Amino acid sequence: MSSTQEEAKKRKLDDGTGDQKEIDNSHSSLFKDFTLKRVLREDPRSKTISLHGSLTKGQHVSADAVVLLERKPFEVSTLEDSLHKTRTTETLSNDIYSTHDAFSPGLSPDLKATVICPATEKHISKYSEHEPFLVRETPDLYKNVTEPCMAQSKFSIQWVYNILEKKTESERIVVEDSDPDLGFVLLPDMKWDRKNIDQLYLVAIVHKHGIRSLRDLGSEHLPLLENIRTKGLAAIKKNFGVAAHQMRVCLHYQPSYYHLHVHFTNLRLDSPPGSDVLRAHLLDDVIDNIHTDPDFYQKATISYALRDGDELYKWYKNANYFGTEESETPNNANTESSTVVVWLG
Amino acid sequence: MSSTQEEAKKRKLDDGTGDQKEIDNSHSSLFKDFTLKRVLREDPRSKTISLHGSLTKGQHVSADAVVLLERKPFEVSTLEDSLHKTRTTETLSNDIYSTHDAFSPGLSPDLKATVICPATEKHISKYSEHEPFLVRETPDLYKNVTEPCMAQSKFSIQWVYNILEKKTESERIVVEDSDPDLGFVLLPDMKWDRKNIDQLYLVAIVHKHGIRSLRDLGSEHLPLLENIRTKGLAAIKKNFGVAAHQMRVCLHYQPSYYHLHVHFTNLRLDSPPGSDVLRAHLLDDVIDNIHTDPDFYQKATISYALRDGDELYKWYKNANYFGTEESETPNNANTESSTVVVWLG
Repeated sequence: MSSTQEEAKKRKLDDGTGDQKEIDNSHSSLFKDFTLKRVLREDPRSKTISLHGSLTKGQHVSADAVVLLERKPFEVSTLEDSLHKTRTTETLSNDIYSTHDAFSPGLSPDLKATVICPATEKHISKYSEHEPFLVRETPDLYKNVTEPCMAQSKFSIQWVYNILEKKTESERIVVEDSDPDLGFVLLPDMKWDRKNIDQLYLVAIVHKHGIRSLRDLGSEHLPLLENIRTKGLAAIKKNFGVAAHQMRVCLHYQPSYYHLHVHFTNLRLDSPPGSDVLRAHLLDDVIDNIHTDPDFYQKATISYALRDGDELYKWYKNANYFGTEESETPNNANTESSTVVVWLG
Repeated sequence: MSSTQEEAKKRKLDDGTGDQKEIDNSHSSLFKDFTLKRVLREDPRSKTISLHGSLTKGQHVSADAVVLLERKPFEVSTLEDSLHKTRTTETLSNDIYSTHDAFSPGLSPDLKATVICPATEKHISKYSEHEPFLVRETPDLYKNVTEPCMAQSKFSIQWVYNILEKKTESERIVVEDSDPDLGFVLLPDMKWDRKNIDQLYLVAIVHKHGIRSLRDLGSEHLPLLENIRTKGLAAIKKNFGVAAHQMRVCLHYQPSYYHLHVHFTNLRLDSPPGSDVLRAHLLDDVIDNIHTDPDFYQKATISYALRDGDELYKWYKNANYFGTEESETPNNANTESSTVVVWLG
């Protein structure tokens, strides 16, 4: 038992306020001297928050720490028992509808905490809120800003080649088509726990090198794209029992790495990360668009969001893209036929 | 105080396990005799769960109830104090990284409960999981399935006309352009709390009647669409301080009602509901597509997800759309050039 744990236990015995049913020797109090410096990011939808503070951990006395807190999902097995002991305060009542604030009884952990300590500036930045900026990338902007950024960043994709050459992660491969032009490997995305089928998330990575993104696709890639669609969906049906019409199959633009890959997610997840219209392009639509016009993705203007920490954001900022857009935004919606009602809230 | 509340208070005094600091007279225990019949839906990402059970509420002895539980987001004002009293169990440790299960001390409510009691079958269905199905709507399917369904459903949009005629919600209008052809009203979406600017969500509803959806749009609507884009974004900048390049502006297909409207959401929300590539169409892209081809949305094949409770789903099912797709899905991904590795998990 660490000295922190011993102290925590002693403290609980001293003040006598603890509920004995809930205490066992494995409980500690890592955060007893936590000092909050700054909230880095909050997401009320996912009930997560990231904090920058200082913490005593191991030999480090009051070191910088990044603390990520996340409320736990509900546990069905203990939920009924837990509800019986839940205290409630009615906050609203109307006919058959009512809302309540409630205190759950703490029978099981209600939080997951991830701690990085000692943390560097880089960790702090990684978990901070970054301002989003919309880019409408025309073919000219692609040529003059995006492509030079990609070329200069020299972002290594050796880890992708390691997967394709089965140097790493070969045991995770769900299906492989080894054809050098049409082939791909399909494997679970790191974000999927590989247990909950409702959250199924797989990625197909093409064997062919040099197709960086949507922008490089033309009619010569239709057999590759159609092969991924057909065989990827068939493998998912076979291995996980999820039918083609229950899957969302898409490419990302911007992608997180510049080697062509396709995302397969279960439709049961409504609006999961990566399905945003500002990032996802349905494989079906991509195939249709190239059939309609082989140069579709060389001519298209494509919208996406950048964050102020992104390398590409810096390039667009340096190209004065956002400055120009700002000044193009009209500052006043009033015209002769409109009435502006200022909303007070 | 209701008899339920009195009983709850008495019980707490009787068993003596309560923490006196946390108890006040406003606390009740609505769920003390809750019997769980079925979990209707779980969402581990948003930490929500909907339950069907029975409950004693008011005069109803053991009535059917739908209970929606949602974990509360973190409250920054009390977080540091709360963390000091949080007990933790280390679940993983690697170098500077560690994860912990934690019990928060119950200083403030940790749940929001919404109760519908007595609940009907309709309520239970509304909050149940519904199987999603992907539709690739071709122009033929639109004409032969979607349009007849729309015509027969006779879904009332009187409430929309009430807003446009300022019979209801006029105090919520942020901006109005009263032009009968190009005009619209912009008002907060019901899903937005109207406080947190990061979650800003507004809807522009056009004054012109009869434009049912994306499918009805052609070059004659470009001035209307461009007017909504320009004046909507300018009003948001003026009233809420959010710039055009920080907004996601899109139409939904299928829309939730067949009178043209445009959604404005803050980009700071990553993948909020309604931003899914299977539903959202960027206004910028819609304008570009119609500029390229005035009949774009009459010719396009458009993908979207239906749920098995939807009226339109029934029409597609009756048209044997999903049956046909099922049999078209290959059942085996094996070909001579592929190796299937069955993933065990």
